[in-house]
Amino acid sequence: MTSPAQPAADDPSPEGFPSSESGPTVAFDPRSLSAEEVYALLTHAVAPRPIAWVSTLSGDGRPNLAPYSYFNVGGQNPPSVVFSPNGGGGGREKDTLRNIRETGEYVINLASRAQAAAMNATAADLPHGQSEWDAAGLSPRPSAVVRPGRVAGSPFALECRLFQIVSHGSGAGAANYVIGEVVHAHVDRSLLNAAGELTSLDSRACGGLGRLGGDWYVDGRGDALFQLDRPG
Amino acid sequence: MTSPAQPAADDPSPEGFPSSESGPTVAFDPRSLSAEEVYALLTHAVAPRPIAWVSTLSGDGRPNLAPYSYFNVGGQNPPSVVFSPNGGGGGREKDTLRNIRETGEYVINLASRAQAAAMNATAADLPHGQSEWDAAGLSPRPSAVVRPGRVAGSPFALECRLFQIVSHGSGAGAANYVIGEVVHAHVDRSLLNAAGELTSLDSRACGGLGRLGGDWYVDGRGDALFQLDRPG
Repeated sequence: MTSPAQPAADDPSPEGFPSSESGPTVAFDPRSLSAEEVYALLTHAVAPRPIAWVSTLSGDGRPNLAPYSYFNVGGQNPPSVVFSPNGGGGGREKDTLRNIRETGEYVINLASRAQAAAMNATAADLPHGQSEWDAAGLSPRPSAVVRPGRVAGSPFALECRLFQIVSHGSGAGAANYVIGEVVHAHVDRSLLNAAGELTSLDSRACGGLGRLGGDWYVDGRGDALFQLDRPG
Repeated sequence: MTSPAQPAADDPSPEGFPSSESGPTVAFDPRSLSAEEVYALLTHAVAPRPIAWVSTLSGDGRPNLAPYSYFNVGGQNPPSVVFSPNGGGGGREKDTLRNIRETGEYVINLASRAQAAAMNATAADLPHGQSEWDAAGLSPRPSAVVRPGRVAGSPFALECRLFQIVSHGSGAGAANYVIGEVVHAHVDRSLLNAAGELTSLDSRACGGLGRLGGDWYVDGRGDALFQLDRPG
């Protein structure tokens, strides 16, 4: 392997890494960082992140609802999505992950701007057995092909079946990539044209809540929108 | 397993699915949708999506640079990220995926608002052997611990080593989840305080480009920002 090209003229050689500098950037070796620093780095760098508001049932039928901003699409054939709950503290898995291991089913709801506060409320760590649905004043609606309910009023809900879980790392900061197939979808009627065509969806109407670093969010429906032509 | 709770009073029973309706939503069975419809559904529902601008080298050293909006963090211990290039047409893998299979190394650059047009230009399908770096007028800088270069001027660059690739589905719409460890990171100095502390990063300064459906993007630095307290 050879280097792709010569570095820019103002760029010093990378000798002296890790934790030295290269032009106007500062370099970090993650192995020398605290958990808090790694979290700050990743959540500010990778933004805005879409939010999966995940509804599950435990094997004995207790409902859970929680938001996860480590979430995205993976492909279309079949429709495939991934989200990652981190490992729980003290070796205890998060309820969402444990429920999906037990049942293989979940619903990913996408919250509207009006649901942001309720979505945020379901991030709280409730005593075991207390429902996030009740605590946030939310109503479940029945799903079409999976058992967990979906959140009434969500502009989109994706019913999913587990394909594979890939764990990477250990402890409270471990990644647990939950990869699933979207087996049914629900779309707010007001987002579709009269013929109900998905190709009529309009990004400016759909918006979408994005999670940034810290306590900040962005609403894709806002004034910050801009458009780019696809390149040839 | 039992149902999580009774459905809302205005919600008809789910009998008659697939492709019937449930209250103010319209239900879709993905198996009855075209590839274009599934793409429209997923990219409008899951938004805004962060964008991995991925630099790779082929086994024989030819550079490639391309953006992927199916991207997110997975965990912190170790720092773990995932992105998914779709399958190529006619059974041909995208260069980014082939290069990572060959070398196990890549750099995920995060584009600034000023780099949006250049980032978009690197999405073009160039003739084999022609460099996206040259076509977009971009300068590579040397990375610290991996061979592919990083994009000069990017606010963040994450040097990655492959952990695992998980493929789901088939054809041009297949998901290929590329899971990797961040082994080194570069942060624009202007985003850090004088002491260079990652915990000083400010979401409003970092911004972040998000991809919506269609040709729309959102800049996390825009006026659409809002803040939520974390729940107890």
